[in-house]
Amino acid sequence: MVQLDQTHDPKRESWVHSANGHPDFPIQNLPLGVFSPRNGGPRGGVAIGDSILDLPAALAAGLFTGEAAQAAEAASGPALNGFLALGAGPRRALRARLSEVLAKDSPDRGRAEACLHAAADCTLHLPARIGDYTDFYVGIHHATNVGKQFRPDNPLLPNYKHIPIGYHGRASSIRPSGTPVKRPRGQTKPPDAAAPGFGPSQRLDYELELGVWVGPGNGLGEPIPVAEASAHVGGYCLLNDWSARDIQAWEYQPLGPFLAKNFASTVSPWIVTPEALAPFRIPQPRRPEGDPEPLPYLIDEADKKAGALDLELEVLLITPGLREKGLPPHRLALSNARHMYWTVAQMIAHHTSNGCNLQPGDLLGTGTISGPDLTSCGSILETTQGGKNPVVLASGEERRFLLDGDEVILRARGRRDGYASIGFGECRAVILPAG
Amino acid sequence: MVQLDQTHDPKRESWVHSANGHPDFPIQNLPLGVFSPRNGGPRGGVAIGDSILDLPAALAAGLFTGEAAQAAEAASGPALNGFLALGAGPRRALRARLSEVLAKDSPDRGRAEACLHAAADCTLHLPARIGDYTDFYVGIHHATNVGKQFRPDNPLLPNYKHIPIGYHGRASSIRPSGTPVKRPRGQTKPPDAAAPGFGPSQRLDYELELGVWVGPGNGLGEPIPVAEASAHVGGYCLLNDWSARDIQAWEYQPLGPFLAKNFASTVSPWIVTPEALAPFRIPQPRRPEGDPEPLPYLIDEADKKAGALDLELEVLLITPGLREKGLPPHRLALSNARHMYWTVAQMIAHHTSNGCNLQPGDLLGTGTISGPDLTSCGSILETTQGGKNPVVLASGEERRFLLDGDEVILRARGRRDGYASIGFGECRAVILPAG
Repeated sequence: MVQLDQTHDPKRESWVHSANGHPDFPIQNLPLGVFSPRNGGPRGGVAIGDSILDLPAALAAGLFTGEAAQAAEAASGPALNGFLALGAGPRRALRARLSEVLAKDSPDRGRAEACLHAAADCTLHLPARIGDYTDFYVGIHHATNVGKQFRPDNPLLPNYKHIPIGYHGRASSIRPSGTPVKRPRGQTKPPDAAAPGFGPSQRLDYELELGVWVGPGNGLGEPIPVAEASAHVGGYCLLNDWSARDIQAWEYQPLGPFLAKNFASTVSPWIVTPEALAPFRIPQPRRPEGDPEPLPYLIDEADKKAGALDLELEVLLITPGLREKGLPPHRLALSNARHMYWTVAQMIAHHTSNGCNLQPGDLLGTGTISGPDLTSCGSILETTQGGKNPVVLASGEERRFLLDGDEVILRARGRRDGYASIGFGECRAVILPAG
Repeated sequence: MVQLDQTHDPKRESWVHSANGHPDFPIQNLPLGVFSPRNGGPRGGVAIGDSILDLPAALAAGLFTGEAAQAAEAASGPALNGFLALGAGPRRALRARLSEVLAKDSPDRGRAEACLHAAADCTLHLPARIGDYTDFYVGIHHATNVGKQFRPDNPLLPNYKHIPIGYHGRASSIRPSGTPVKRPRGQTKPPDAAAPGFGPSQRLDYELELGVWVGPGNGLGEPIPVAEASAHVGGYCLLNDWSARDIQAWEYQPLGPFLAKNFASTVSPWIVTPEALAPFRIPQPRRPEGDPEPLPYLIDEADKKAGALDLELEVLLITPGLREKGLPPHRLALSNARHMYWTVAQMIAHHTSNGCNLQPGDLLGTGTISGPDLTSCGSILETTQGGKNPVVLASGEERRFLLDGDEVILRARGRRDGYASIGFGECRAVILPAG
C-alpha cells in the first residue's frame, strides 16, 4: 500500500510558480517522462508546472544522492525502462527528494533552476521502449454497450465476471500525444453486402483508457500473486486505443481485434507514479448482487480496500468546424476510473497466473472505461449507439464517427478534498485522411 | 523473385565434411543464428554441417568485403535485427561469399577453419530481439478442425476465405529450441461445470507452425503492397505455439486467445533465408471451386506463380515411456507448408494494409499447418479429435494431450529432385510440471 506523506501535503508550493494551482503538474504530482529540449537529444525529465526538470542535468548538478541518485540516473537516458525496473524504493526516494528540491524556499533552488526547460520548447517522446502491449476489457459498461453492437442477444459473455479479459495489442504503433493518426484502410463487409470491400474505414473511433507502465515484472514461469501485484506498477498514463469499428466487425472472429486496432494507439507522455495517485485510491466497488466472487488467485484484502482509483476521465473533441468558428472543444464524455470491474492488481495477477512474463516498460491498457450513461461513454460507438444517434456540436456539425481533421483529447484528473488535484496532461491526436 | 544460382548447385560440397549430406545444414542452406561458444558471449554465426562459423571472427579474418562484409558486420552481434534490416542485397552477397569460402577447394579454407566451433559445444539463442509477434491462421485444415471443436455448427467463419486472419501474440515468452516449457495454470470451465476453477492445464497442446522473421519492414502509415512483400521477409524458422486448450475454450471470447498461448512459444534458432528456400517455392494451390477470389490488395501474379512453399513439416513426440524403453520418437504428424491457404506475401500485405508498421526482427507465425487427414494434423487437439481418440505409442502409453516429461520436436525439410535437401534444425522442448 502506498503511504501518504509530506509529498502529498496540499499546502506545499513550488518556487516554479506555474506549478502552484497547475491543473496537471503541481508539486504533488512529479511525473516522469522523456523529452528533447530545443537543442538536445532525448533524456529523462520531470514535469513541474509549465516546466520540465532535466534529470541528467540535475544529477550532474549534484542534486541527488543515494537511492534518489540511483533512480535519477536510471531515468536520465532516452527511455525509462531501467527506472521502471528499479521498482518502488528508488522511485519513492526520487519523489521525496524532487519534492524537497522544488519546494518553495528550497536551498537547492539555484542549482535546480538551471536545469529547467520551458515545456513549450520541448518535444515529448514515448517514456519507454514498449516490449509488449496488452489491452484489457475491464470497463463493464463498455463491454456491455459494445457487446450489444456486435452481439445484440449476448452482450456480456459468461466469462466476463470471472476473468479480467485481455488480449495482446501492437507495441510498434504506439505513439506519444501529438502524433497525428492516419485513417486506416481495411477490409469491411456491411451486413447487407454480398462480399467484402476494401477502403478507408468509415467508422473510426477513439477509446478512453488508462495505461499502466509495468515496473520490475516477473520471470517466465513465475506468476505474480495478486497481493504483490501493485509492486509491479511503475505508473499510469492515458491511452487512446483508436479503433476502426467496421474493420473490427468483419475481422474479429474467432481470434479477436487485429487491424481494427493496430494502426495506432496514443499515450500521454508522462508516467504518473503510484505515489502521486495514492490520495485517489478507493475501495473496490461492491459487485452487483448476484455477481460471482472472483477465484482466490484474484482476491487480496488490501486490494479490496484500496485497489480502485477515483480519477475523472474526460474526452474532448475538436472538429474543423469548431476550430474555424473559434468554439471550445466539445466534451464527448466524462467518465471515471472507478467504473473498472477489475483492479490493476487483478489484471497483473491474471496476466501472469500462467507464468507469462511482464517486463519493465511493458504497457497494459485497461480497456475503454465508460460510465453507466450516455454522457460517460468512452467511445463514440457507444455515445452514438453504433452511429444511429449523432452527436450534435455547437458548430452545427454532426458526428456519428470521427471525420478527417477531427482531434480527440483525453484528460484524467484526481480530485479529493484536502489534497491537491493532479492531472495526467493531454493525450491528443488529429485524424489525417487515408491519403 | 529469388533467383537460383550457383549457391544452389547440388554438386557443390564443403570442406566441412559433416555438411555433405547433412540433413539440415549442407552448404546449400547457410542459415544464420546467434550462438555462444563455450567460453564466449553471444554472437552471430552460420550453421554448416555440425559446425558453426563465427561471423565476427570471420569478419576479423578478412574473409568478407563490400556488401558481404556489411552483412557480416550487421550479423556479428548478439541479435540479428540489424542484419534483418539490411534486406536482400547484402544478405545475398553474404550467402554467395559464404558459399565460396566454405566450398571444397576454397583458397580461404585455412582462415575460415580457424573460425569454426563444434555446434555441440555451443549454446543457441533467439536470433533477434522480437519487437512484436503476430500469429496468423492460414492453415485451412487446422482452422476447420479446430473450429469444429470450439464451434461445432460453424467451424470456418465467413471471413476466413477473404482475410488472412491473424492476431497479436506475446513476444516476451518466445524462447529458442531446448528451453523447457512449464505447464501453465489457468482458469478453466468444463462445459458441465457450474463455475470455473483454477489449476494446471489438463489439455496442453503443441502447434506446428512456420515462423517468418521480418526484414526491413515499413513506416507507420505506409502499407507494403503485396508485390513488394517478399522483400520484407528476412527468413524462416519453425514455431511451436504451445496452447492450453482448456484455458483457451473458456477465455477466448470475445477478444481471442490470451493466457492459453502466451506462457511460451518455441522457435528453432536458425534463420533459414529466402535464398536457401528458393528451390522449394511452388505456385499457390488452386482455390477450391466456389471459393472467392481475394480482394485486389492481396493479389500479385508473381506471388500466384511462386508464393507457396513445398516444405515437409514433421511433429515428433518423445515420452518418458519411449525414453525409458529406448524406443524412437513417435511421429505425430507429417504435414506440408503447401497447406497454407494464404501466402506469406499475402500475410504481410494484409498486416500492413491499414498502415501497421512491421519492424526488423518482428516474428510472424503462419498458424498451425495441418494437412487434410489424421496423419497430418499440426496439433494434438486435431489428432485426437479433442482428446476423444488417444494416440497409442509403441511404449503402450496413450496420449490425449501432452503430459509432463513429454518432449515435442518439430522439423522442416525441403526436398526437390535436382537440388540438395535442406532442413531447419530442431524446434524442441520438454514439458515441466506446473510445480
